[in-house]
Amino acid sequence: MLETELQKEMGKVTEPATENILTMTDLPLGTIDKILTNAQEFAHTPYWFEKKNVFAANLFFEPSTRTKLSFEAAEKKLGLEVLNFEADTSSVKKGETLYDTVKTIESLGADVVVIRHETDRYFDELAGKINIPMINGGDGCGHHPTQSLLDLLTIKQEFQSFIDLNIVVAGDVRHSRVARSNIEALERLGANVFVSGPEEWMEGELRSRYIPMDEAAEMADVMMMLRIQHERHAVQMVAGVEEFHQKYGLTVKRERLMKPGSIIMHPAPVNRNVEIADELVECKRSRIFKQMKNGVAVRMAVLDHVLQLTKGGYKK
Amino acid sequence: MLETELQKEMGKVTEPATENILTMTDLPLGTIDKILTNAQEFAHTPYWFEKKNVFAANLFFEPSTRTKLSFEAAEKKLGLEVLNFEADTSSVKKGETLYDTVKTIESLGADVVVIRHETDRYFDELAGKINIPMINGGDGCGHHPTQSLLDLLTIKQEFQSFIDLNIVVAGDVRHSRVARSNIEALERLGANVFVSGPEEWMEGELRSRYIPMDEAAEMADVMMMLRIQHERHAVQMVAGVEEFHQKYGLTVKRERLMKPGSIIMHPAPVNRNVEIADELVECKRSRIFKQMKNGVAVRMAVLDHVLQLTKGGYKK
Amino acid sequence: MLETELQKEMGKVTEPATENILTMTDLPLGTIDKILTNAQEFAHTPYWFEKKNVFAANLFFEPSTRTKLSFEAAEKKLGLEVLNFEADTSSVKKGETLYDTVKTIESLGADVVVIRHETDRYFDELAGKINIPMINGGDGCGHHPTQSLLDLLTIKQEFQSFIDLNIVVAGDVRHSRVARSNIEALERLGANVFVSGPEEWMEGELRSRYIPMDEAAEMADVMMMLRIQHERHAVQMVAGVEEFHQKYGLTVKRERLMKPGSIIMHPAPVNRNVEIADELVECKRSRIFKQMKNGVAVRMAVLDHVLQLTKGGYKK
Repeated sequence: MLETELQKEMGKVTEPATENILTMTDLPLGTIDKILTNAQEFAHTPYWFEKKNVFAANLFFEPSTRTKLSFEAAEKKLGLEVLNFEADTSSVKKGETLYDTVKTIESLGADVVVIRHETDRYFDELAGKINIPMINGGDGCGHHPTQSLLDLLTIKQEFQSFIDLNIVVAGDVRHSRVARSNIEALERLGANVFVSGPEEWMEGELRSRYIPMDEAAEMADVMMMLRIQHERHAVQMVAGVEEFHQKYGLTVKRERLMKPGSIIMHPAPVNRNVEIADELVECKRSRIFKQMKNGVAVRMAVLDHVLQLTKGGYKK
Repeated sequence: MLETELQKEMGKVTEPATENILTMTDLPLGTIDKILTNAQEFAHTPYWFEKKNVFAANLFFEPSTRTKLSFEAAEKKLGLEVLNFEADTSSVKKGETLYDTVKTIESLGADVVVIRHETDRYFDELAGKINIPMINGGDGCGHHPTQSLLDLLTIKQEFQSFIDLNIVVAGDVRHSRVARSNIEALERLGANVFVSGPEEWMEGELRSRYIPMDEAAEMADVMMMLRIQHERHAVQMVAGVEEFHQKYGLTVKRERLMKPGSIIMHPAPVNRNVEIADELVECKRSRIFKQMKNGVAVRMAVLDHVLQLTKGGYKK
Repeated sequence: MLETELQKEMGKVTEPATENILTMTDLPLGTIDKILTNAQEFAHTPYWFEKKNVFAANLFFEPSTRTKLSFEAAEKKLGLEVLNFEADTSSVKKGETLYDTVKTIESLGADVVVIRHETDRYFDELAGKINIPMINGGDGCGHHPTQSLLDLLTIKQEFQSFIDLNIVVAGDVRHSRVARSNIEALERLGANVFVSGPEEWMEGELRSRYIPMDEAAEMADVMMMLRIQHERHAVQMVAGVEEFHQKYGLTVKRERLMKPGSIIMHPAPVNRNVEIADELVECKRSRIFKQMKNGVAVRMAVLDHVLQLTKGGYKK
C-alpha cells in the first residue's frame, strides 16, 4: 500500500518525455487550470518573447484561417521559428502516410507540431511514436482542445469560476467538434451544461440536456452558439434559413430575454442571420472577437506548456 | 474666423486614430511627397530595421507574386512579423464576410493589414470599422496606390520633378487599375498625361488625352506601358497579337523615335512582344526591374507612414 | 606554358561573381568535400546562426514537402529571412517567363534563390543572366544536387570514405532524378555503383551495371532504394504491386541477406510494401529518417557555400 502511494507520488513527478495536447478528456483539471492562468497572463499584457532556436511546425490538412493564423501568431509571440506545411502542395498527394509525414517533420528538426486533420482521432496512430510534442488543432468531428480552452478562458475572464454557471450549447451539436469537448470539460469544471436547437438533432445523452431556445436564453449565463457545419443539408432538413433562425437561432428578440451579465459566444466563422442575428455579432454581450483574441493567448500557453519554455526547463 | 483658423491648425495636429492608404485620390500631395522622400532613402541604402513586436498581415484574395512578395520583403526589412492569410485555404470558402475576416485578423493581433481583393472599392464597407491601418494592395479594376507610388518614385528618381513632364500611358487603359490612379496623381503633381492604344478603347474623359503611338513615342518623357489584362479577348477584339504589337505596342522601331533621356516603364508581368518588344524589356531606357526594386522601398515607406515606426511615435 | 600555369593558379583565386549549385556534374570534388565537411559540422551540433539581413527566396513550381521545408529550415537556422514564392497563386499563371520571374525575385532583393522546376535543365536559360546565386532544388527527371549531397553525407557518416564501397541503386532508375546524379558522383568519389530492378527498365549505360536483387542485397554496402515515380503505370507495366515488391523490392527476406554493417537508404516519400517492406522503413539498417535530418545540414552547407556567410567574406 505504502509502495502504491509512493508510486503515485512518483507518478506526479515522472512526466512523460513528451507531453501532447490531444483531447480535453485527457487533460487533468490541474493542467487546464495552469494553462488558463498562463493564458490569462499572456492575454493581459502584450507579451512577446525573445527569439529562440526552436521550430514549431504547423501541419494543416484542412483549410482553416483562424486556427492556423492563431497558432502562428502565438508561435511568433513566443519567439519560435515557424514551419508551415501546406497539405495541398505536399507529398500527401503522393500517397504518403500521416505517420511518415509527421516523422519527416520531426526529422527536419521541428520541436513541436500542431496538426489539423479530417480523420477522427488521427493521433491514435501517432501517439507514442513521435518524439516531439503534438498539439491537436482539430480532428474530424471529434476534438479541438485549444478551441475549448479559449472558450474556457473567455468564460473564466467573465465569471472567475465555472461552478454552477448555466451554459447553453446551441445549434448543430451533432457535427460540432467544439461542442462535445466543451460539454465534457465544462461539466468537469462544475458548470451546468444544456443543449438547444432542433430536437431532431439531439441524440443519446444529449436528449437529457435539451431545453427549448426561449427558455435557454432566459436562464443562460453563457449562450454558446455553434456554427452550422453543413449549412445547406442541415438547415434544409429542418427548415428554410429564415425559419431556422427564428426557431433555433439567437434572434434579437431572444437576446432581450437574457439575464444582465450573461454573455454570447460563437466559435466563428459566423453565418450571420442563421445562428445569430447580424446585429448581435458585436453587441455588448458578445464575446465573439474576444474569443479570437483569447485564442492566441491560449495557444501561447499550450505551446509553453508542452515546450516548457518559460519554466526555464526547456533546452535544445 | 479666428476660431476657424485655429480649428484648421488644430486639424493638422489631430490625426485620425488610424490612417489608411486606400486610393491615390485620398492622399494629400504632402503625404505623397513624404512617402516618396522616405522611399527614396530606403531605396538608396540597404535599410534593415531591428525586429519589432509588430504584426503585419497580408490578406490576398487574388493571386499576385510581385505585390505580395514585395510587401513581405518590405515588412521583413522593417522588422515586422508577417502573417500571411491565404484566401484559397481559408474560411472565405465557408462564406465568411470580408468584414468578419478582417475583424478576425485584427483580433488575432495584427497591427496593420494589407488587402488585395477583386471587388472595386471593397474597402468602403470596412472604413471606420477596423481599428488598425489598412493598406490597399489592389482592388478590382480600381485602385492600387502602392503601385502608383512606386511608379512615381521611379519617375522622380529620373527627373526630380513632375512638372511639365510628358507622360504617356499606353495600352489597355480601360482594364488597368494602375492607369487610372496614375493619371490622376500625375496630373495633380503637374505632369501632362496622355493616353495611347486602340482608339476604340478610349472612352469618356480618356478621349481628350488620346494621341497615336508614333507621336506618343516622339514626345514622351515617360512611356508607361500597361499590361494587357485580358489578353485573348482584348487583343482578339482589335487584332491578332502580332498586329496588336505593331499597331499599339512599343516596338523596336518606335523606341528609336524616343527622345534622349526618356524612359520606359511597365508594371509587369510583361507580355513580351505584345505590349513591348522582347529586346526592350531590359534596354537602357527600361526601368522595369528598377520599378520592382522601388516597390519594396515604397511599401516600406507606406508601412512606416501608417505605423509611424521610425518617428518614434509608434508604441504597442 | 608558364603563362598557362599562372593563369591556372589565378583561375583558382578568381572566383565567379556568383556561384551556382545546379548539377553534381559541375561540382568539383573539392567543393563536394568542403560542403560535406561543413554539413557534418552542422549535423552534429544544433547550429543556429544570428539573424542576418539576407533574403533567401524559394521558388517551387512543383509540389514538394520535404525539399521545400528542408531548405526553409536550413535557411532559418542560418539566420536568413525567407521569401516563399508559391507558383500556384502566382504570375506564372499569367504567362510570365521563368526568366522574368527569377529576375523579379532578384529585383525584390533576394540574395539567393532556390528553384524547383519541372523542366529538365530549366537553369540553362538563366545561367549567367541572374546576379544572385541559384541553387537547383530539382529539375524534371534530371538533377537534384542537394538530394545527392545528403545521400553522400549519409554514406560518409557511415563509412568515412567512398572508395571501393559497393553501392546498389535499385528501382525506377529511369525516372529518378536522384539516381543519375548519384551514380555519377559516387563513381567520381571511388565507389562501385550497380543498379537493380526490372531488367526491362535498364537502358544504355545502365545495362552494364545491372545485377539481380538477391545478389545486390548480398554484396551491397549501401542499398539505395528509389521511389517508384509513376507508380501505377510503372508497376502495372511490369507486374502487380505485390509481385513487384517480391521481385524487385527490398523484402524482409532480402534484408536478411545483407552484410553486417550495410545500410538501407531511400529518398522518401516511401511507398511502403512496394519499394521496401513496411517493417524495414525504420529497421536498424535504415537511414531513411537520418537522410532527412542530414538534408537540413547539407542545405545549410550549400547555402553557406554560395553566400559565404561563415567565411566572413559575405557582405550585403
